[in-house]
Amino acid sequence: MSRKLRYGMIGGGLDAFIGGVHRMAANLDGQIELVAGCFSSNAEKSKRSGEALFLNPARVYSSFQEMAEREAALPEGERIDFVTIVTPNHMHAPVATLFLERGFHVVCDKPMTFTLDEAKALRETVRKTGKIFALTHNYTGYPMVKEAREIVRRGDLGSILKIVAEYPQGWLMDQIEATGQKQAAWRTDPARAGASCCLGDIGTHAENLGRYITGLEIESLCAEFTTFVAGRPLEDDANLLVRYKGGAKGVLYASQISSGEENNLNIRIYGTKGSLAWFQEQPNELKFQPKDQPARILRRGNGYLSDAAKAFTRLPCGHPEAFIEAFANIYSQAVAAIRDRIDGKPAGQYDFPTVEDGVYGMAFLETAVQSAKSDSKWTRFVEA
Amino acid sequence: MSRKLRYGMIGGGLDAFIGGVHRMAANLDGQIELVAGCFSSNAEKSKRSGEALFLNPARVYSSFQEMAEREAALPEGERIDFVTIVTPNHMHAPVATLFLERGFHVVCDKPMTFTLDEAKALRETVRKTGKIFALTHNYTGYPMVKEAREIVRRGDLGSILKIVAEYPQGWLMDQIEATGQKQAAWRTDPARAGASCCLGDIGTHAENLGRYITGLEIESLCAEFTTFVAGRPLEDDANLLVRYKGGAKGVLYASQISSGEENNLNIRIYGTKGSLAWFQEQPNELKFQPKDQPARILRRGNGYLSDAAKAFTRLPCGHPEAFIEAFANIYSQAVAAIRDRIDGKPAGQYDFPTVEDGVYGMAFLETAVQSAKSDSKWTRFVEA
Amino acid sequence: MSRKLRYGMIGGGLDAFIGGVHRMAANLDGQIELVAGCFSSNAEKSKRSGEALFLNPARVYSSFQEMAEREAALPEGERIDFVTIVTPNHMHAPVATLFLERGFHVVCDKPMTFTLDEAKALRETVRKTGKIFALTHNYTGYPMVKEAREIVRRGDLGSILKIVAEYPQGWLMDQIEATGQKQAAWRTDPARAGASCCLGDIGTHAENLGRYITGLEIESLCAEFTTFVAGRPLEDDANLLVRYKGGAKGVLYASQISSGEENNLNIRIYGTKGSLAWFQEQPNELKFQPKDQPARILRRGNGYLSDAAKAFTRLPCGHPEAFIEAFANIYSQAVAAIRDRIDGKPAGQYDFPTVEDGVYGMAFLETAVQSAKSDSKWTRFVEA
Amino acid sequence: MSRKLRYGMIGGGLDAFIGGVHRMAANLDGQIELVAGCFSSNAEKSKRSGEALFLNPARVYSSFQEMAEREAALPEGERIDFVTIVTPNHMHAPVATLFLERGFHVVCDKPMTFTLDEAKALRETVRKTGKIFALTHNYTGYPMVKEAREIVRRGDLGSILKIVAEYPQGWLMDQIEATGQKQAAWRTDPARAGASCCLGDIGTHAENLGRYITGLEIESLCAEFTTFVAGRPLEDDANLLVRYKGGAKGVLYASQISSGEENNLNIRIYGTKGSLAWFQEQPNELKFQPKDQPARILRRGNGYLSDAAKAFTRLPCGHPEAFIEAFANIYSQAVAAIRDRIDGKPAGQYDFPTVEDGVYGMAFLETAVQSAKSDSKWTRFVEA
Repeated sequence: MSRKLRYGMIGGGLDAFIGGVHRMAANLDGQIELVAGCFSSNAEKSKRSGEALFLNPARVYSSFQEMAEREAALPEGERIDFVTIVTPNHMHAPVATLFLERGFHVVCDKPMTFTLDEAKALRETVRKTGKIFALTHNYTGYPMVKEAREIVRRGDLGSILKIVAEYPQGWLMDQIEATGQKQAAWRTDPARAGASCCLGDIGTHAENLGRYITGLEIESLCAEFTTFVAGRPLEDDANLLVRYKGGAKGVLYASQISSGEENNLNIRIYGTKGSLAWFQEQPNELKFQPKDQPARILRRGNGYLSDAAKAFTRLPCGHPEAFIEAFANIYSQAVAAIRDRIDGKPAGQYDFPTVEDGVYGMAFLETAVQSAKSDSKWTRFVEA
Repeated sequence: MSRKLRYGMIGGGLDAFIGGVHRMAANLDGQIELVAGCFSSNAEKSKRSGEALFLNPARVYSSFQEMAEREAALPEGERIDFVTIVTPNHMHAPVATLFLERGFHVVCDKPMTFTLDEAKALRETVRKTGKIFALTHNYTGYPMVKEAREIVRRGDLGSILKIVAEYPQGWLMDQIEATGQKQAAWRTDPARAGASCCLGDIGTHAENLGRYITGLEIESLCAEFTTFVAGRPLEDDANLLVRYKGGAKGVLYASQISSGEENNLNIRIYGTKGSLAWFQEQPNELKFQPKDQPARILRRGNGYLSDAAKAFTRLPCGHPEAFIEAFANIYSQAVAAIRDRIDGKPAGQYDFPTVEDGVYGMAFLETAVQSAKSDSKWTRFVEA
Repeated sequence: MSRKLRYGMIGGGLDAFIGGVHRMAANLDGQIELVAGCFSSNAEKSKRSGEALFLNPARVYSSFQEMAEREAALPEGERIDFVTIVTPNHMHAPVATLFLERGFHVVCDKPMTFTLDEAKALRETVRKTGKIFALTHNYTGYPMVKEAREIVRRGDLGSILKIVAEYPQGWLMDQIEATGQKQAAWRTDPARAGASCCLGDIGTHAENLGRYITGLEIESLCAEFTTFVAGRPLEDDANLLVRYKGGAKGVLYASQISSGEENNLNIRIYGTKGSLAWFQEQPNELKFQPKDQPARILRRGNGYLSDAAKAFTRLPCGHPEAFIEAFANIYSQAVAAIRDRIDGKPAGQYDFPTVEDGVYGMAFLETAVQSAKSDSKWTRFVEA
Repeated sequence: MSRKLRYGMIGGGLDAFIGGVHRMAANLDGQIELVAGCFSSNAEKSKRSGEALFLNPARVYSSFQEMAEREAALPEGERIDFVTIVTPNHMHAPVATLFLERGFHVVCDKPMTFTLDEAKALRETVRKTGKIFALTHNYTGYPMVKEAREIVRRGDLGSILKIVAEYPQGWLMDQIEATGQKQAAWRTDPARAGASCCLGDIGTHAENLGRYITGLEIESLCAEFTTFVAGRPLEDDANLLVRYKGGAKGVLYASQISSGEENNLNIRIYGTKGSLAWFQEQPNELKFQPKDQPARILRRGNGYLSDAAKAFTRLPCGHPEAFIEAFANIYSQAVAAIRDRIDGKPAGQYDFPTVEDGVYGMAFLETAVQSAKSDSKWTRFVEA
């Protein structure tokens, strides 16, 4: 197939944050072009967004249902190959389900759905339709995260004993949802965000990152949710103790009231033979410390890295890559899967988060929400 | 009083770690001289240690009881002013009690005692004898820790919302206690260390540091203790969720199996108006981040610091001070108190950890040990 | 003008480094599309590159002359708006001159030309044709570099006294040009790179960065060039002392044999009232230290930054941007200028390096080459 | 010899900086005691300093000549073993010469003398008297500097190609010598400091550090001296290009007007097989980067270090050591030499800077001062 893939976007109007990120990530490698969209539930906003993106006005829609209908009706050489969903959480499942059923592949933002039940149902739809479904747990797109996974896989850490995963932010220290900040408004609203604000928005990334690197699954957890800012119906801080299957232990927390923290996702993994540390705000470095030896600072773009890391790098060492490039790595893998499907090739090994990751993430949230309400120390991980 | 203070040491023979640290700290400022000691329960070892330290052999003793007796019998112009106790934990209380009762001031390593009951009894002895008792929670001796306390006191953080205190080490990743490593042997032995290894040895420092800076006291906590290394009777890893009186929340953990970590005590404190971060391994820096403003890197030795920090600094900025200097700051304050007492001056404001801190620390340990065995999420802080 | 700009590329075939960087930078914001190219002097390679980029084969050319001719002959609604030149240095001027004369705007890699004379001639062509000419000194595209310039402009550093600019790399530590590494082959070849390898390739960035931030111009300099790797006809290491007009002093060096260094461009600027430090490998941070006050760590994406920095940022704080995003900022400004021109609007204030910067850079190189051969300490800056 | 060494001090009254540093360094290990001194040319000040140091008033002198005389007349078991000289530079040679001739060993601050001729004469005196003479180039006392030297000696860097040594400070940004700051007053005064302020005070440390680690000697250099602060007779900023014997090149600069810099001595050394970087303000770390491999962060106190580093460390890893401990390492080596001499043992291998280092340092200064006045690019290193 010698053409760019065509995609449409649901949500992500010009005043949204994450829509622009998806578009930049999709643009980066020149493999995909945006040709359609329903950027807002407000038809006028959707239209203006489409204009600013140089889209054909005929393909800027005022509802996602209309878009699904009309795109499906276009000839194969013209209609979109996949849709990207960047709406608030409560709309993920309905939109994804409709487009999957209409025959489109889907890229969807996280957390995957509003509830765990919805997540399981969506998994069924993905299985049934056989379409590609990619979830944008974007932090796993960083090359040095992939290197971390390789190090664990090679056994260089020995058995994993402990994971410390932090995700502090400070942007919700004030009640900015009351002043019309759009992001804050829906993320703190149970009707649009779901049963969790902080853990759902960012804690799920921390969980996903740990599982991506180590493969460890949670056996039980102990969560404390706190709402520090008065008048906020959902938690803005969540601290968890974690027991992993097999005996490893974890500390995981997420916070949106940690003043001065920007987007400080970080993870440290300790094993019997060494440890790893990675900080998202310095993503080109990975600290690997073999036991009783000097720490080694592994840096993106160097010849000594694994093929797993090298495959996801665009620039020579010292020319830093960052957030958008990592995000684009999720797209590039989803695109590879979609291209292979279109070209009729057998499915290869792709490295992007799937609907299974989405279900697991929702089960994690569900378990944490239960635990936060419980007086018992440990809450068993719910069935995913 | 125009002379150096004279002190004796219990424990701290030449093959011990902490004895040498105390001696260097005591030496640093030229205010104290070591004149007596019982450096080991092994008389021959004690003797050899005394020789290496250029002591008068007549004042090197083979038991602490003998030392207390004979030093007390020396004329005032000759006998020691205070004793430093650097034995394993189980000997702290008996030694301290005896010397206090014989009329000597005491400097004692932490954790203060073997049990909480012992700690309370020792507090009674201190009160009764009226002697100076200093506990070497040495990390509070760092100038930038004192600056942190000042920042909190001034209200520059607003109300404290969250404390994250970490103390990971990796030195007990192997069962080195089985190979004769002396430090490891007693710290992992319930008969000498008490009911906790990891939390007692280092977690108490993390707790003390948070309380020193913020003044916050614990309402309840949720602890998980893990023994990762087979054959070890006490925990080598402890993770805690903390609820402070007044509503702040905390994450506190200590670990001795975090491979690659050296002595990485660190603390981050988040308030409504800003945050602080301090890392013991880079002790000359304190990061202070006022909300919505750039982080400020405060560095020891600068004119812009508070008097509280300036009073505990010996060198100009950029000439780093470190562990021994901070440790010496505990000594210098204890010495100030002892000098004032000897000189008959009224007691001033001193800044060193007292027997109260020791009792609090033992109550913290007791609560955490209880919690670690409990199925309830929260264990109320025991009465200190 | 409600469409993407169309551009063509000269050089930058699939095995080149910098061509891909330009394409990603141009793709990022969805404002430009690649529609034509002559990617190699080898027609077959050019063709294959065009295919991989999904180009219309009719617009993939086998010589830049053919491309200029045929693109100029296309109707206005179809032909390219500008051309990007990413060939080895010796081809910059001929290609740029031809396209300018054929009526196209030009984006050109640096150093601008092969010689200073050529640079001056190109400046004449730009003036004569009135076309937009942008030079990709990409490091000035970083938001925190723009913040640095604002700080200097506001007078927050006082008078500038000293500039230390470093650009060490290690990639030419071995004679990789002898093993067919394409980049190394032409950069170390006087016939294609010009009179300098190291200073031309990277030292010019260091000079440009200092001048961009401070506005200071060089009065005279003292250069030492060294060729450490045997068999290499041009220098791989260059150390300079610099005297700026007005009395400031500088240390500037570039190296390609500094083993272990990746792309460590960095600059420190000292003034009477404070100092700045910026490291390209951590581009989201700028250290600003007002005299006698704590250093302030300014970070991209925060509300406290100047409009100059904010205008060039795409993501919230803590979501790092890096090399490609900075490079795209050069493109976005050139695009703004070209759009305004096409739309018939009056020229605005754009922030991208121009032909004047290119001439200055070539004069810097010329002066340094002269100095390196001279026994006199100071060589006066040649007329630009 | 089973006793502490006894020393006296010349200079270093209570309001001086460096005297206190020497005393703390000498105190640290409990091997030396201060028993005499002439702390100021002002007899009253000297007396008060002696009191504060708990000295016997009979051994606090009002002139160094008196002290030499009277100490020499004391019985062997009582008189000082060595003298420490911490006066302004112009007094070093007269004092050292007198004490050497009276039979005392000497520890002397740097730069060693006022002029190169004086330095050569002092070398003669040392040779003639056969006494121990130690120069406190204290930065070579850091364990990680010793590790760096070992790495070079083992050949792990291959051939050294380039040294970049920086020593920026900012404390003389204002004319504080005019406001009575004592340190600044003599350091900027040619009558007391000699022909150089900045390079003499700190640049000599940078030179010495490079030579200590690599053993490389200077063939010729090119220096620019600048006096930025009006009314100051000596330079406050010095930038040098250096050619080492054997072909390595160097950039070396020192500055006292680099606002915001505290005491940022640092060195990077590049060889054919790898590189090293060390920053004095983070002295417990050494970055070693083998070519084409990840950088290794070597940290003080670890088992993987060389014996050379281990021999100079007092605390376990992660318990940071710093300036005073490094300074004490110079003392501990001088003490070892003096003890061996007193005990009649054959001289061993000691690791402290000697009178030869002092002569070399003065030759470096002399050469740089000449170069700064010269129009020729290169000034040959004067004979040391």
